[in-house]
Amino acid sequence: MSIERGMDESDGSKEKRKLEDKVMYITCLDMEGVLVPEIWIAFAEASGIPELKKTTRDEPDYDKLMQYRLDILKEHGLGLKEIQETIAKIDPMPGAKEFLDELRSFCQVIILSDTFEQFATPLMKKLGWPTIFCNTLEVAEDGSITGYKMRCEKSKYTTVKALQSIGYETIASGDSFNDLGMIQASRAGFLFKSTEQIKKDYPQIPAYEEYDELLAAIRAAMAQE
Amino acid sequence: MSIERGMDESDGSKEKRKLEDKVMYITCLDMEGVLVPEIWIAFAEASGIPELKKTTRDEPDYDKLMQYRLDILKEHGLGLKEIQETIAKIDPMPGAKEFLDELRSFCQVIILSDTFEQFATPLMKKLGWPTIFCNTLEVAEDGSITGYKMRCEKSKYTTVKALQSIGYETIASGDSFNDLGMIQASRAGFLFKSTEQIKKDYPQIPAYEEYDELLAAIRAAMAQE
Repeated sequence: MSIERGMDESDGSKEKRKLEDKVMYITCLDMEGVLVPEIWIAFAEASGIPELKKTTRDEPDYDKLMQYRLDILKEHGLGLKEIQETIAKIDPMPGAKEFLDELRSFCQVIILSDTFEQFATPLMKKLGWPTIFCNTLEVAEDGSITGYKMRCEKSKYTTVKALQSIGYETIASGDSFNDLGMIQASRAGFLFKSTEQIKKDYPQIPAYEEYDELLAAIRAAMAQE
Repeated sequence: MSIERGMDESDGSKEKRKLEDKVMYITCLDMEGVLVPEIWIAFAEASGIPELKKTTRDEPDYDKLMQYRLDILKEHGLGLKEIQETIAKIDPMPGAKEFLDELRSFCQVIILSDTFEQFATPLMKKLGWPTIFCNTLEVAEDGSITGYKMRCEKSKYTTVKALQSIGYETIASGDSFNDLGMIQASRAGFLFKSTEQIKKDYPQIPAYEEYDELLAAIRAAMAQE
């Protein structure tokens, strides 16, 4: 879909081939577990409501899990305002902002997350307003959460394919099962702070624990064009 | 493509309809003339090379214009490093960063520009690293610019359509002819600091001159869902 133009094509085929290979990259990053703690777990701790620690590992049906969570919020009289105030007390992981600032200086970045924009906003503020593509909550006039909307099917995979359709190659990194789609569909992909099980099941995907390692891997992928 | 779920659908059709209407927005902004001065004109002034003020109004063939510009850069021995140093002296328009910070606090934002990422980078740094989708230059090992790559055909229009395909409604604003495609393809669109001619030719598109007006128009568009 992209259009390449060499300024001096009389230089011969070598110069021209190099230009055709010119690649533009976007790095797509998972949010929870990569840049910030798992929001529901951090929120359970910050709000003192341990029942909210239940995750998809305990309840694989996402709709049931969300209904369970929103029922608990309602019981505790927690509307969006109270939730955002509590989430505002959660900090990004140490080094996450510096990592993101450095990454944004040499590559476009979009955070791809299955969270909700209303939960992510206080954390994005602390990270210097990076762009995030996620989902959204339905909030009633009294501030209570009445529903939610998932942006699209297989959101991370679908989004990297859409970015590729407008002339980008993607580099992806995340920690969880729901990141594997975008990692495998990208020019380069990395596990970051993942579980032992996922690292064992996907030995072909390079896995890193430190931001410096991930930055170096992204730079190396971009230099390989 | 999006999936809506109401938490309490027994509430009846009214609640359900509201949820189906729930919209997620991305604002797509032109860069030059909206957030920063026209780069080639500002660069012509900063570098003291008036020949670089020639624009598509003087030479409608973009390939010829770029060849002309790159030839002049070569004559003056200006490689990417020198160009970036000169562009680093150009400042965003007064109020642009504050506008962007405020906008990013309530809406996702992507800058859609026909410039090149190597030119935009020093300006994006001054704007707090917003995400920008643009084009790229081919740079030789000695730092000279040897070619360029346009990301995709009709880049602004194509990009808002791609964002719509992953569950977003778009709001678009720009000053020029090449912004009309994304403005007309979006849920809401605004001219900003445009020419008298374009405002006269497109009276149906609201036109603003001040960031506060544009912010208010974007908020109003988002509230209309």
